[in-house]
Amino acid sequence: MKEKAIGFFDSGVGGLTVVREVIKQLPHEKIIYIGDSARAPYGPRPVDQVQAFSWQLTEFLLKFDVKMIVIACNTATAVSLSSIKEKLNIPVVGVITPGSRAAIKASSENKIAVLGTLGTIHSGEYEKALKARNPFVDVLPLACPKFVPIVESNEVNTPNSKKIVRESLKPLQWKQYDALILGCTHYPLLRNQIQQTVGHSVTLIDSGAETVSDVSMLLDYFELANSPSIEPKHEFYTTGSVAMFEQIANAWLGEEKRNIQHVNIGELKDEEK
Amino acid sequence: MKEKAIGFFDSGVGGLTVVREVIKQLPHEKIIYIGDSARAPYGPRPVDQVQAFSWQLTEFLLKFDVKMIVIACNTATAVSLSSIKEKLNIPVVGVITPGSRAAIKASSENKIAVLGTLGTIHSGEYEKALKARNPFVDVLPLACPKFVPIVESNEVNTPNSKKIVRESLKPLQWKQYDALILGCTHYPLLRNQIQQTVGHSVTLIDSGAETVSDVSMLLDYFELANSPSIEPKHEFYTTGSVAMFEQIANAWLGEEKRNIQHVNIGELKDEEK
Repeated sequence: MKEKAIGFFDSGVGGLTVVREVIKQLPHEKIIYIGDSARAPYGPRPVDQVQAFSWQLTEFLLKFDVKMIVIACNTATAVSLSSIKEKLNIPVVGVITPGSRAAIKASSENKIAVLGTLGTIHSGEYEKALKARNPFVDVLPLACPKFVPIVESNEVNTPNSKKIVRESLKPLQWKQYDALILGCTHYPLLRNQIQQTVGHSVTLIDSGAETVSDVSMLLDYFELANSPSIEPKHEFYTTGSVAMFEQIANAWLGEEKRNIQHVNIGELKDEEK
Repeated sequence: MKEKAIGFFDSGVGGLTVVREVIKQLPHEKIIYIGDSARAPYGPRPVDQVQAFSWQLTEFLLKFDVKMIVIACNTATAVSLSSIKEKLNIPVVGVITPGSRAAIKASSENKIAVLGTLGTIHSGEYEKALKARNPFVDVLPLACPKFVPIVESNEVNTPNSKKIVRESLKPLQWKQYDALILGCTHYPLLRNQIQQTVGHSVTLIDSGAETVSDVSMLLDYFELANSPSIEPKHEFYTTGSVAMFEQIANAWLGEEKRNIQHVNIGELKDEEK
């Protein structure tokens, strides 16, 4: 059991921001990652479709006999975590609770902005998680549907992406908050542009990075951590373009030869495309 | 289930350093605490006796239908955590893993000193936990059998206690280390004196305080956290003197009226006294 991989899934490449932290904090853990770029973004999709896709990705990972699953996608966590966690007999971790816990800690004014996809923001899961910890917290949710497409097409740091970030965040312009949750694992790839726009007095919370502390603790709790003698060979799968995945992985995780393969997951019906 | 208490046990008053952090970080959680001051210190006792005592304290807490048990004692964690965790169907948390994780993070030189009771140091559990995370770490274990009696008799900050701390730490005098684990929940009560003796370049790790992050995360993971509307009334039990427990609790947690009761746990045979 001990030397098995941890499975990660995301709607696309966003979960690589979680993977980066795992490589840093848990270097002996083997990663099997599946990104569903062919069907990204998940944000605007109906709830039952995101749930169905989440199960397909979970089943893909279970074939590798993983010891833990990390839902490295806020949209999928919002609508699928509880049912997947309930049905599997391995630990399943989402990104919303860790992000909320960190934001409550970071905000001294109890005013927290949350950026997310349409799906995540409509689910209200961040608001629920934040208020469960502190009923007096002010939550400012903001859907940013244009962010995931920028990241998936590897267009961060272009003049166009800077403009989109500035415009998307305008609704927060006159609002008061001292912490902001990057409530989508794609958003840390736009971190600099978001920080510049909201100003340096706001603490940005990377929900994915925070999740790795939970992963580490649960590996300890369930006695599943790999021995430090392990030098893991990670495996990456994408339903989209391997070349695009590789470019983004190189930019985000550092240039190196990676094992990245294309897979087909599920069959897209016409209306899902 | 949700509004049940968390049970804590310790050989005496040391676990109050964990309780302090719980009150701070998890103010809505109800605490039921049992300190076995009549039989403290546990450090010099044989392993099977500490295991038997740990089970007696666990059974005492289970009568209150607690939702989680925190072994707020390093000696008991070292020899009893795995068997108690295995047998109960509620989460059981010890203090050694969280302390080790924090120390690995804090030490940039990978040289870590560990202070503990005779029992904790002889168990080798800290060394095992540290090396499981990083096989290249240098561990400097040091048993400090005189510390618990100072704390249990409420003699911290006396000239005598300062002298004992200085003398006990002499074996570390010429050693190199940049992090030091307070590997006994009693030791944070001597924190200032220990810090003065080892110098301010060494990061002290409070194993008990670190444990509260694990408690918080596991409450989330198992969906056991209290609602924030709860204003808990804690209950404290001691096998020793209520007056002495109250003095130490007032000094450590702040002056207030507390529900502290004397209980008898087990029967001391002559050779255990």
